[in-house]
Amino acid sequence: MAEPFLLETLAKRGLAEDLIYGDRTTSALFPRPIAAKGDLLAKEPLVVAGLDLFQTVFSLLDPSFQFEILVGQGQEIQAGGIIGRLIGDGRALLKGERVALNFLQHLCGVATLTRKFVQAVAGTGAKILDTRKTQPGLRALEKEAVLMGGGYNHRFHLGDLIMIKDNHIALAKGIVNAVAATRATLSHALKIEVEAKTFQQVKEAIQSGCEMIMLDNMSIAEIKQSVALIRKKAPDVQIEVSGGIHLGNVSNVARCGVDFISVGSITHSAPAVDISLELINNGPTRPRPSKNKSRHTG
Amino acid sequence: MAEPFLLETLAKRGLAEDLIYGDRTTSALFPRPIAAKGDLLAKEPLVVAGLDLFQTVFSLLDPSFQFEILVGQGQEIQAGGIIGRLIGDGRALLKGERVALNFLQHLCGVATLTRKFVQAVAGTGAKILDTRKTQPGLRALEKEAVLMGGGYNHRFHLGDLIMIKDNHIALAKGIVNAVAATRATLSHALKIEVEAKTFQQVKEAIQSGCEMIMLDNMSIAEIKQSVALIRKKAPDVQIEVSGGIHLGNVSNVARCGVDFISVGSITHSAPAVDISLELINNGPTRPRPSKNKSRHTG
Amino acid sequence: MAEPFLLETLAKRGLAEDLIYGDRTTSALFPRPIAAKGDLLAKEPLVVAGLDLFQTVFSLLDPSFQFEILVGQGQEIQAGGIIGRLIGDGRALLKGERVALNFLQHLCGVATLTRKFVQAVAGTGAKILDTRKTQPGLRALEKEAVLMGGGYNHRFHLGDLIMIKDNHIALAKGIVNAVAATRATLSHALKIEVEAKTFQQVKEAIQSGCEMIMLDNMSIAEIKQSVALIRKKAPDVQIEVSGGIHLGNVSNVARCGVDFISVGSITHSAPAVDISLELINNGPTRPRPSKNKSRHTG
Amino acid sequence: MAEPFLLETLAKRGLAEDLIYGDRTTSALFPRPIAAKGDLLAKEPLVVAGLDLFQTVFSLLDPSFQFEILVGQGQEIQAGGIIGRLIGDGRALLKGERVALNFLQHLCGVATLTRKFVQAVAGTGAKILDTRKTQPGLRALEKEAVLMGGGYNHRFHLGDLIMIKDNHIALAKGIVNAVAATRATLSHALKIEVEAKTFQQVKEAIQSGCEMIMLDNMSIAEIKQSVALIRKKAPDVQIEVSGGIHLGNVSNVARCGVDFISVGSITHSAPAVDISLELINNGPTRPRPSKNKSRHTG
Amino acid sequence: MAEPFLLETLAKRGLAEDLIYGDRTTSALFPRPIAAKGDLLAKEPLVVAGLDLFQTVFSLLDPSFQFEILVGQGQEIQAGGIIGRLIGDGRALLKGERVALNFLQHLCGVATLTRKFVQAVAGTGAKILDTRKTQPGLRALEKEAVLMGGGYNHRFHLGDLIMIKDNHIALAKGIVNAVAATRATLSHALKIEVEAKTFQQVKEAIQSGCEMIMLDNMSIAEIKQSVALIRKKAPDVQIEVSGGIHLGNVSNVARCGVDFISVGSITHSAPAVDISLELINNGPTRPRPSKNKSRHTG
Amino acid sequence: MAEPFLLETLAKRGLAEDLIYGDRTTSALFPRPIAAKGDLLAKEPLVVAGLDLFQTVFSLLDPSFQFEILVGQGQEIQAGGIIGRLIGDGRALLKGERVALNFLQHLCGVATLTRKFVQAVAGTGAKILDTRKTQPGLRALEKEAVLMGGGYNHRFHLGDLIMIKDNHIALAKGIVNAVAATRATLSHALKIEVEAKTFQQVKEAIQSGCEMIMLDNMSIAEIKQSVALIRKKAPDVQIEVSGGIHLGNVSNVARCGVDFISVGSITHSAPAVDISLELINNGPTRPRPSKNKSRHTG
Repeated sequence: MAEPFLLETLAKRGLAEDLIYGDRTTSALFPRPIAAKGDLLAKEPLVVAGLDLFQTVFSLLDPSFQFEILVGQGQEIQAGGIIGRLIGDGRALLKGERVALNFLQHLCGVATLTRKFVQAVAGTGAKILDTRKTQPGLRALEKEAVLMGGGYNHRFHLGDLIMIKDNHIALAKGIVNAVAATRATLSHALKIEVEAKTFQQVKEAIQSGCEMIMLDNMSIAEIKQSVALIRKKAPDVQIEVSGGIHLGNVSNVARCGVDFISVGSITHSAPAVDISLELINNGPTRPRPSKNKSRHTG
Repeated sequence: MAEPFLLETLAKRGLAEDLIYGDRTTSALFPRPIAAKGDLLAKEPLVVAGLDLFQTVFSLLDPSFQFEILVGQGQEIQAGGIIGRLIGDGRALLKGERVALNFLQHLCGVATLTRKFVQAVAGTGAKILDTRKTQPGLRALEKEAVLMGGGYNHRFHLGDLIMIKDNHIALAKGIVNAVAATRATLSHALKIEVEAKTFQQVKEAIQSGCEMIMLDNMSIAEIKQSVALIRKKAPDVQIEVSGGIHLGNVSNVARCGVDFISVGSITHSAPAVDISLELINNGPTRPRPSKNKSRHTG
Repeated sequence: MAEPFLLETLAKRGLAEDLIYGDRTTSALFPRPIAAKGDLLAKEPLVVAGLDLFQTVFSLLDPSFQFEILVGQGQEIQAGGIIGRLIGDGRALLKGERVALNFLQHLCGVATLTRKFVQAVAGTGAKILDTRKTQPGLRALEKEAVLMGGGYNHRFHLGDLIMIKDNHIALAKGIVNAVAATRATLSHALKIEVEAKTFQQVKEAIQSGCEMIMLDNMSIAEIKQSVALIRKKAPDVQIEVSGGIHLGNVSNVARCGVDFISVGSITHSAPAVDISLELINNGPTRPRPSKNKSRHTG
Repeated sequence: MAEPFLLETLAKRGLAEDLIYGDRTTSALFPRPIAAKGDLLAKEPLVVAGLDLFQTVFSLLDPSFQFEILVGQGQEIQAGGIIGRLIGDGRALLKGERVALNFLQHLCGVATLTRKFVQAVAGTGAKILDTRKTQPGLRALEKEAVLMGGGYNHRFHLGDLIMIKDNHIALAKGIVNAVAATRATLSHALKIEVEAKTFQQVKEAIQSGCEMIMLDNMSIAEIKQSVALIRKKAPDVQIEVSGGIHLGNVSNVARCGVDFISVGSITHSAPAVDISLELINNGPTRPRPSKNKSRHTG
Repeated sequence: MAEPFLLETLAKRGLAEDLIYGDRTTSALFPRPIAAKGDLLAKEPLVVAGLDLFQTVFSLLDPSFQFEILVGQGQEIQAGGIIGRLIGDGRALLKGERVALNFLQHLCGVATLTRKFVQAVAGTGAKILDTRKTQPGLRALEKEAVLMGGGYNHRFHLGDLIMIKDNHIALAKGIVNAVAATRATLSHALKIEVEAKTFQQVKEAIQSGCEMIMLDNMSIAEIKQSVALIRKKAPDVQIEVSGGIHLGNVSNVARCGVDFISVGSITHSAPAVDISLELINNGPTRPRPSKNKSRHTG
Repeated sequence: MAEPFLLETLAKRGLAEDLIYGDRTTSALFPRPIAAKGDLLAKEPLVVAGLDLFQTVFSLLDPSFQFEILVGQGQEIQAGGIIGRLIGDGRALLKGERVALNFLQHLCGVATLTRKFVQAVAGTGAKILDTRKTQPGLRALEKEAVLMGGGYNHRFHLGDLIMIKDNHIALAKGIVNAVAATRATLSHALKIEVEAKTFQQVKEAIQSGCEMIMLDNMSIAEIKQSVALIRKKAPDVQIEVSGGIHLGNVSNVARCGVDFISVGSITHSAPAVDISLELINNGPTRPRPSKNKSRHTG
């Protein structure tokens, strides 16, 4: 889970876009605190993710805000279900609603789409991986949402796994040399993965001594041929498939016997799921206890 | 267009996620600059947006980098077309590729989906509007992409238009009072819009003297009934429809004679379009002229 | 009101200028917490504004600090009156005094000067507006102080109202064309205002179909002539006067029948009002309860 | 002079307030670069300060922008004089005009008011000092403007001079003890100044062995009495007067034979001076050479 | 002591390096809070410093974390002694351990090495000073650690003392002229120190009227000769020695009768002292009370 | 190598500590640019690292500054050798000298100490690794300096390798369970390392199926016994030794046949090496060509 200080940075970034010059509607309507309750309502079936970021948004606006979670991270909820209940100053709920929902709808969207891919490969040995095709600034949170959906995380940045991809190969002199050159700079902690677009490149990758091979944009027939060769010649090498994966073909790919299938769309194209915040006036207003005990007697 | 200093902030945010501990693959393979060219290739039909942000990513990595734009902002390109050509240090192109494409594929995705909605309402008087349902941190850029797609921008933040929405009404005492209360705090610059979910609320909104009415989640029949009443009773009031709009129903809504249709999905659920960067080795390496003329003679 | 996270950013910016290397006087004199009380004393008549920012400064230095407000935002207080009372660690009060008073004296100064302009036009229909002539970094707070003084806010930034000013007209081809060009890019949310320096420009502005006209640096006679024409030809257009307004002439301008008078000096030249913080030793020192319950037994 | 990287921080802070969502007027009117020239016109007599910050604002918007300075920092200019000439993309000039002038009008205002105080004490040995009563975030620049006006800088922050002020004395046990306590913690670099409100406190301050004494809010008679005693008993001690200084009494204070007179109003209440930027269209538009040589051929 | 908001900035900077993508080991092992206690164990003799920064690291990860200090700032502890005890969510202790110890081991290292120099000059009148040779970003904390060790602080930045050093003299025209030129720009608050590498420069420095002279990289004989001259000709001038000072020669230098000895190595080369954090499982897990009272019932 | 935008962040952080209120000595002495040259002189034998950060400091102060590198990154230089030559505005060289040298002396210190360890194990198969015991904010640069010294990088943060350390084991239930629990959450990219303090723990670690074992604080005899067992039972497992390593014992440890030896002191306790910047006046001053072509004619 992301740490509190990182969540605050993200929440402030979102709030700054909306509140740089205040919420003039809410300020005009409600000059004083107004006690309110709200239901966080799933309007379609979804997998929950991003609740801590959602909560952080409101906490920054009303430190005494309370959030009761009914359906936790990684769980499924049906249309009409209540994810959680909010209690606090209605002005904070109005001001933070859009920003908090923008985060939540996107992250639940990522978890929900991931879950669909995970279910599509159930029963095979294949795991669904994310990619680095993430929304700038949200990578850590999106990758956590992938975990909530049942997927696994591929590398987080350009420093935590060696990947020799098509453009590296285009600029370098062959796969075998590239693997040797990178191996020489490494200590023990990092594995090396090679991207292969053709059966010929698969053969070179096997020869290179890399720990993983990614089969990129291959047909089912090519994948099967490659898997057979790798399992025979380099049984310790892990096999990833990538490129052009969608819900319609992921099951066939998984049944080729690969270890991992990486899917860019679960982060870069996950549609926001429909969630709404339904507020009700919580009766007579009550004073919000300030952290600093300021008392207005003027 | 976003100003250079804002683009740099966004580009650095994306690069920091990928390069906090360097690109260990590229550094291992290419210890010295390597001249490279790259084609920015559209792999599906799309509308171009976000080129200045794309370019900023690489400029931060290689100040002498050049970018020749072949298809400009707001233009359509077919699958297989070349959006632009890049020339620079191949190491910068490898390091920035994923971050730059993440921005570009998302922003072109927003412009492309917007264009589809715009085309669906062509010939009616209705304009397609965006919403505040944007990716946190990217609002200014996404709204620019909506313009590139032919749409128009709704409000940018909570301070540049008064909108009295369902949750405001739930906490306040009626639409008419709410409009009066906000009107009293305003100077001349801001208009007031009221969200109406029912025909009864439309009548109250007309009575309130607001400048705009948003019909929220109404059926085609309700929209027609509401438009007729507004046009008759308050001909200066502008009419927006929102909620549940998709490519399958937007044309029918537009033909109800409304002024604006706001569509959250063009920002929050636009799928990334497929764009790739195809690099080629540009012959023998040449020294990159440093801004500071440092010369390595050791 | 500005949100807590924005107030913290401003307060930290001020504190960083003073405390980057600590308060060496206070640290040398008071190695341990010292209970103290302080009166926030108005030394001249003033209108109160900026109390939340004032309070935030001390809360960052002593989370258990208490502030009792006696005269609230927007209220007038006479010389010798007590605005509020502070209780907390005397060291925090000493360290934050200058920064907190710098904010408070400036923002009360803005509110106080605004109030004088508002009183000068009382009984006419004219409203006093602020401008974008604000201290960099303090715009949101200064505009809130204008509200406290009884004024109204003009636009906040270059994106929330179209204003076609003298330099736009100098670079473009005529007022009518300029209004048409900007109108074509807008959705419904934004109004258009045109700045007119001459009676001829007023006629062009009327013809352009803009929603507001600003009469810039005109004589009383020119203002009257312009108002007469606008009211006759374009009764829905709102009229603003700007340029060279001071307390000696604002009443005469208001009586010309204009809607708004914008005054740069209420933000850019408001003198700081005189407020002092009078501390008293609150008897024997008592331990400050730490948020984290650290206990020093060494 | 402030370093470039600090100027950029300030300029970006100002620009962010105005351009967070773009300049919609300028973008609508001028989709392409438009060559422009501008005169920076003094509309009242003033002392020049802040030119480097003024210039930085435009450089961030148009890196090829040129600024020809005609009247340099610290010089006086009469009403109607031209401070400098700007050449660049007219869109950048329009977008940055307000932010750049906000900085410039304030900093020239500080320098101009300082100069008036300096001239009022000419011929005496007294120097005019600033205080820490500055606009938050602008302290370094305001103190540089004081130098441009002919004044001198008092301490910059709470760590570069020991000052034992009224509130310190109120919480501590006597001036002599306070000076001794702080002296014990110091190395050689810092002097100690004591604030004295009464003649009795002056005697204690002399006894304490401090290097400087500030006479706070004393009458002319009290100042003379105190100066006489200090010069006799502690001839090496420097004497500062503070509190209630204005242009009407500063000369009388200076003639009491003091070394320094500190004046809060030269920073916290200096009115903005009137400066305007007069743009002219510089003939046919010409392409702005981009730093990155992007070429738009679409 | 550094203020809380500055400590948070430093602590977040350290945590961001370690936790940008989470602590995958701890998250995998402990999905729920686990009550833990820890002893902060000195594994060699040391002087304590940096406890507030150490504590801030954990408070950012677990707001309910408690820290009981057994040996306070500036005190000595022997090998095997317990500096303090931590109680909190074991996950926060695991995540923050390395970052908090990195700060603590370095700052205690600075205090410990300073103490050795202070003890070496005990009985002479010489004080040990730090320099500006600090780790970037840590200057304020390192200088506080020097105080804990019994040393004194030299200047903090380039604005709080005039120092005319070798490279200034190389570019300017003589020491006497340089002192006069800087003196003319100063108010009362700043002293002037001159660096002298030769006996000839000492004579020029005395003639210049500066308040302090630093004898740079001189032999014991040169120091004695210089001290004799300065004490005779300019008895008010303070004398600092700098350059090449180590524990083996500092006592001899001190006995030359100098006022100050500045030692770069106490900040730039202080070895980290050995401190470890020994955790124990505190029995059955208990729920951590959240600040926002979120309750997970899913 | 660290990217330019990261180097700028670090360089600005260092400069801000020194120049927040300007360099008053340099500004007083040199009101105009002064052409200068400087030699960067090694005053003891060292290994070069950190040149790009050193250069960035000056580029931020004088964009036209030139740096000619004579001895490149990773190379050795003897006492008296010239690392590089600087040409630029002498004022920028004076202002940036201390900050630039602070970075350079520390990073060269890290590379130099690393090289000594590397040489001590030459001829064995052991590689020297760094740790996460780094100066907060400098981790990426210090780890690059380790590479320059001939060492290798251990993990960068808590997310790029699973390490089950003593405190994890103390809070969890056994090594075998801990490895299984973490394994279940991982995709392919991460290896798992277990820290073993005893021979019994080595046996458990072998049984756990981890990829690496770290022998922590063992005697030479224990190391030999552990290596023998691991090589026999788990020949694919890599062996790291850590704890208490210094130049006096590292060779003996290496000869035990281990793969890696990690040494905290190469980052947390590397003494700064002695480097100085010797400036000379470069003859008559010449104007510095400004990036923005401002011309001062006043």
